[in-house]
Amino acid sequence: MNTLKRPNVVILGAGYGGLMTAVNLQRTLGVNEANITLVNKHDYHYQSTWLHEGAAGTIHHDQIRIPIKDVIQSNKIDFVKDTVVEINPKEKKVKLENGELSYDYLVIGLGFEAETFGIKGLKEYAFSIANINSARLIREHIDYCFARYNNEPEEKRDELLTFVVGGAGFTGIEFLGELVNRIPQLCQEFDIDRKKVRLICVEAAPTPLPGFNQQLVEYAMDYLEQRGVEFKLGTIIKECSPEGIIVSKDDEVEEIKAKTVVWAAGVRGNSIVEKSGFETMRGRVKVEPDLRAPGYEDVFVVGDCALLINEEINRPYPPTAQIAIQMADTCAANIAALVRGKEEEIQKFVPNIRGTVCSLGHDDAMGIIFGNRKLYGTQAAIMKKIIDNRYLWKLGGLSLVLKKGKLKFF
Amino acid sequence: MNTLKRPNVVILGAGYGGLMTAVNLQRTLGVNEANITLVNKHDYHYQSTWLHEGAAGTIHHDQIRIPIKDVIQSNKIDFVKDTVVEINPKEKKVKLENGELSYDYLVIGLGFEAETFGIKGLKEYAFSIANINSARLIREHIDYCFARYNNEPEEKRDELLTFVVGGAGFTGIEFLGELVNRIPQLCQEFDIDRKKVRLICVEAAPTPLPGFNQQLVEYAMDYLEQRGVEFKLGTIIKECSPEGIIVSKDDEVEEIKAKTVVWAAGVRGNSIVEKSGFETMRGRVKVEPDLRAPGYEDVFVVGDCALLINEEINRPYPPTAQIAIQMADTCAANIAALVRGKEEEIQKFVPNIRGTVCSLGHDDAMGIIFGNRKLYGTQAAIMKKIIDNRYLWKLGGLSLVLKKGKLKFF
Repeated sequence: MNTLKRPNVVILGAGYGGLMTAVNLQRTLGVNEANITLVNKHDYHYQSTWLHEGAAGTIHHDQIRIPIKDVIQSNKIDFVKDTVVEINPKEKKVKLENGELSYDYLVIGLGFEAETFGIKGLKEYAFSIANINSARLIREHIDYCFARYNNEPEEKRDELLTFVVGGAGFTGIEFLGELVNRIPQLCQEFDIDRKKVRLICVEAAPTPLPGFNQQLVEYAMDYLEQRGVEFKLGTIIKECSPEGIIVSKDDEVEEIKAKTVVWAAGVRGNSIVEKSGFETMRGRVKVEPDLRAPGYEDVFVVGDCALLINEEINRPYPPTAQIAIQMADTCAANIAALVRGKEEEIQKFVPNIRGTVCSLGHDDAMGIIFGNRKLYGTQAAIMKKIIDNRYLWKLGGLSLVLKKGKLKFF
Repeated sequence: MNTLKRPNVVILGAGYGGLMTAVNLQRTLGVNEANITLVNKHDYHYQSTWLHEGAAGTIHHDQIRIPIKDVIQSNKIDFVKDTVVEINPKEKKVKLENGELSYDYLVIGLGFEAETFGIKGLKEYAFSIANINSARLIREHIDYCFARYNNEPEEKRDELLTFVVGGAGFTGIEFLGELVNRIPQLCQEFDIDRKKVRLICVEAAPTPLPGFNQQLVEYAMDYLEQRGVEFKLGTIIKECSPEGIIVSKDDEVEEIKAKTVVWAAGVRGNSIVEKSGFETMRGRVKVEPDLRAPGYEDVFVVGDCALLINEEINRPYPPTAQIAIQMADTCAANIAALVRGKEEEIQKFVPNIRGTVCSLGHDDAMGIIFGNRKLYGTQAAIMKKIIDNRYLWKLGGLSLVLKKGKLKFF
């Protein structure tokens, strides 16, 4: 291959899928094999599966993010801090806010957006745990509500201490797990009686974590209810306003006054993907088995923007960090094969679901590992921290684990 | 004296004047000489001269407050946590929110309130550095403005990072001194360019700290201006709204958009005092030389509710902690004399102004000590911390200095 005509590999997004693809390529390809460019809105990568902890204020947001320069070698990969505006796959170009890039091979790893299903006021008035900026905004907003409480006339105060979480999926439950740890600290900090604080979880399905093992779900619900969480199951949010939410269950409508509503009930792929002309379902591209976008030999999609069907149950795999990281392995290997002209080495992506652990604050959790083994309590909480640290190891080795890892096991 | 008819001494307010009076009486009087009751809204005393540090977030509010039980001996003084509603000096009764107390001798030490001079919107929309609750509200409000910045559309953001301090008196200048330390930390915490932040001080007088030595005033202004403070002198606040303030100077009107306006330009005595029928000027009782309220042999007034004329310049002494603490000495001695039936031992209050030091953040200050010696910079900052610790020593000895003192000199 002519080193003067090294192909341009452009990676959009430095989330789990994009950054891990970049790191894999950095390890696989020699400096002269390709020009690799990584584009990201921020100069840091963040762990979206830890954001709920930053939002609750139980860990600092700096532990959640990693400077991109700490894991990318600048002699192998160019980093461009910019925001993607649109992709033009016909002309093989990417339009950025401050420029344009041409590619030979493209990796789309632009992540998720909140899906509000058109519910009135949700986009405007509810918070979502979407990124570092929004997570620390939620943290500060909660603190601010506590700080205001003792400065308000009696009749105006209750809604300041009512916190609504929309959705009892993974994010909702894990966020509530952090809040039940955090709320007593805040009560102490701001001289407020714990009994004044309400934590309400509204979920449209009849059970939290639909599809998850029922015994584990009950464990999580019991744990959270004992710590003051009120579950409103089978309940739909009709509207959100600065004053709170309106919900309905079996045609009964109720208003819940709350200054804090966190929407954690739906994600979709980045809307840039559909705006760029790819065929999507909720912003996600139904990828080929080798992770390429249908009809585009040179475009790979990884992470939350990729839709992959689990043939066993004929339903999409949930968009998790675990799968995004595994996709990055296959995607990097396939790009390396293409760069080297060895098309026959293109692999199919085969997810390997090692387990799913849902944290319930710092010192409790529940989940399934090794296919069917249930874990609860301390054991599960330790396993969750091992999973979190394992990713850091994969991304940046021991030094990154020591810098950003969850090392206080108890 | 018959121990069965011990007189009731009631002290209203546990600020500098009230609490120090209580502590002095606790040291002077035997258990059988009087029933002493201290009434306070909170179960803690706070140092109002440190509140601006809590408001800026440079020290935690728990360092500013002291649990009353830590300095009061329960066998000598009854503590009642309640809010004073009204005093009835004719019937010698005090009405509380949850009860009523009768007294033989009363000490009024109910502290200050913000004086907004009827400026439109100031009471509703400006913050004031008045107590622990309002100070930590300001801290959280500032944090929240920073947290919101990166979540807002570009054109709506500037006012979030514009902070207006109304008044360049002692509190205003000291608060600005803390803010110039704190703002760079907040910029780092929330990924914001320091240049985006505006700190504006509006003062109606042509100079900050009117009446203070001009050389020292210039030192303070230079210090603050070099760190980004914009002074608008000879400028009047006409109106305050949720959007900011409207000011005027020489008939030129300007609107300053700001989400944070802190009013630090005026204090007055507690309005309960005038509501109770005492003759007051801005809530302050012009006390007799022995600190009694005119016409009431059994009512003493200390601290910010007491007005005392400095005969040398025929103007009132400023309401400072220094004077409140000294008043408490005289007040306690006079009450002890009355309790013991030794009216001839009643003393006149003679203030002893040892010096005035104005802090400019943690590591700078300026002021005058020993009547005319000017102090700047490090020396002055150390002197300020010695003054702060000295009060703690007087109130609770070494153990209180170690618990709450400012021990990090540099």
